[in-house]
Amino acid sequence: MTQTREEFEARLRQIGAERYHDKHPFHDMLHGGRCSPDQVRAWVINRYYYQHSIPMKDAAFMSRVEDPELRRMWRSRIEDHDGTETNPGGIKRWLKLAEAVGLNPDYVASTEGVLPATKFAVDAYVRFVRDKTLLEAVAASLTELFAPKIHAQRIEGLLQNYDFADDSSLSYFRNRLKEAPKDVAFGLAWVLDHATTQEKQDAAAKALEFKTDVLWAQLDALYSAYVAPARVPPGAWVAGEGMALARAS
Amino acid sequence: MTQTREEFEARLRQIGAERYHDKHPFHDMLHGGRCSPDQVRAWVINRYYYQHSIPMKDAAFMSRVEDPELRRMWRSRIEDHDGTETNPGGIKRWLKLAEAVGLNPDYVASTEGVLPATKFAVDAYVRFVRDKTLLEAVAASLTELFAPKIHAQRIEGLLQNYDFADDSSLSYFRNRLKEAPKDVAFGLAWVLDHATTQEKQDAAAKALEFKTDVLWAQLDALYSAYVAPARVPPGAWVAGEGMALARAS
Repeated sequence: MTQTREEFEARLRQIGAERYHDKHPFHDMLHGGRCSPDQVRAWVINRYYYQHSIPMKDAAFMSRVEDPELRRMWRSRIEDHDGTETNPGGIKRWLKLAEAVGLNPDYVASTEGVLPATKFAVDAYVRFVRDKTLLEAVAASLTELFAPKIHAQRIEGLLQNYDFADDSSLSYFRNRLKEAPKDVAFGLAWVLDHATTQEKQDAAAKALEFKTDVLWAQLDALYSAYVAPARVPPGAWVAGEGMALARAS
Repeated sequence: MTQTREEFEARLRQIGAERYHDKHPFHDMLHGGRCSPDQVRAWVINRYYYQHSIPMKDAAFMSRVEDPELRRMWRSRIEDHDGTETNPGGIKRWLKLAEAVGLNPDYVASTEGVLPATKFAVDAYVRFVRDKTLLEAVAASLTELFAPKIHAQRIEGLLQNYDFADDSSLSYFRNRLKEAPKDVAFGLAWVLDHATTQEKQDAAAKALEFKTDVLWAQLDALYSAYVAPARVPPGAWVAGEGMALARAS
């Protein structure tokens, strides 16, 4: 049976309550100050691959949208990440964080050393948005509903627990706190407007679950590779690689 | 510099020696009899997703091949997996194994409960074959160079260590021992014939590395979810689900 707007929104929020990656043990380790410097670096290196793919995901979405108004709304997401004349953008801010934790930003930007499992998960998201219905693509973006809480916790936890954390290194998260709410308000309203049958609601809910899987799999891969008993897969980053000092040599 | 045929073949074999998934700790656990029945089931459920995707991968390849002769050679791979009038095929044989370990084959065939990370990795392989050059697609299949050894070990190790193992439940592996050598002999010769420049050799070697990543990531995901300290991701198979007994209810 088709759910009312309110019921359906509650269903989407419940997916976050049950499956969002703030439930993953790596999240607590990171924010609770229990990550070693190398574990923080592994997170920064791998999460960069996600950041670097998001504007491609958004361009894939826009390449399929015929309505100029919807494209115009969506375009600001690419600007937020890639930057404008007045805004360095999220990707550059992430590389500031990379520098702050002692990594060579060029190494991080090369995406060498990213775990294959991170690439498989993130690439699956880009492909999902390219291949599925627009409704499913927008619904998948709604993990942003759950992001402000995690970003606020992250800023507080990182500031409290790590020397590298300051206004400059954490500017990525502060900016996302400003940018994400407008995106997600638009995306949520769009999904609620367009998921008008049970079939569409089910597809949208499944798309949001898929996206929580994409995020969870990234933390699982990090945990498996870099938390004891650590098993770094062949070819992925090992401590000591890609450090800022290497620039001088 | 372009390598000679012999040098390049040695380079490809070296990739297997360094990165093939027989180096993964789950491999030793499984063959050494140190997997619990539920760990064997998790492996059967997840590895099924790979089996079920391989003929789609081969069809994606054939959909891009203009030479009827090459398509004709390749078609036997699909027959080996999907079956013919006289051969049940690898997928049905895998479901025999599923039954032998106490799983409901319909549950396994539904691919419900497969780890998201397994799907991301395997889907990445199908997409790779769809999107990359034919040379890279064939080179990626060359992990079969390293498979006979693992299959022989698997048969021996499973027979020695698990009650479910017998000629019927292990028929998948026995058949692969017969089928794979002809495929890989053809694939290897094709890659050696076509990788005629350094650039092409590098691309082919990278494709084979990519494929070892796909296999490794699958065992990593299994290990992370089902070997202590186990962290099953939300929604994936948990012990007790999909058992053969459920059929009677």
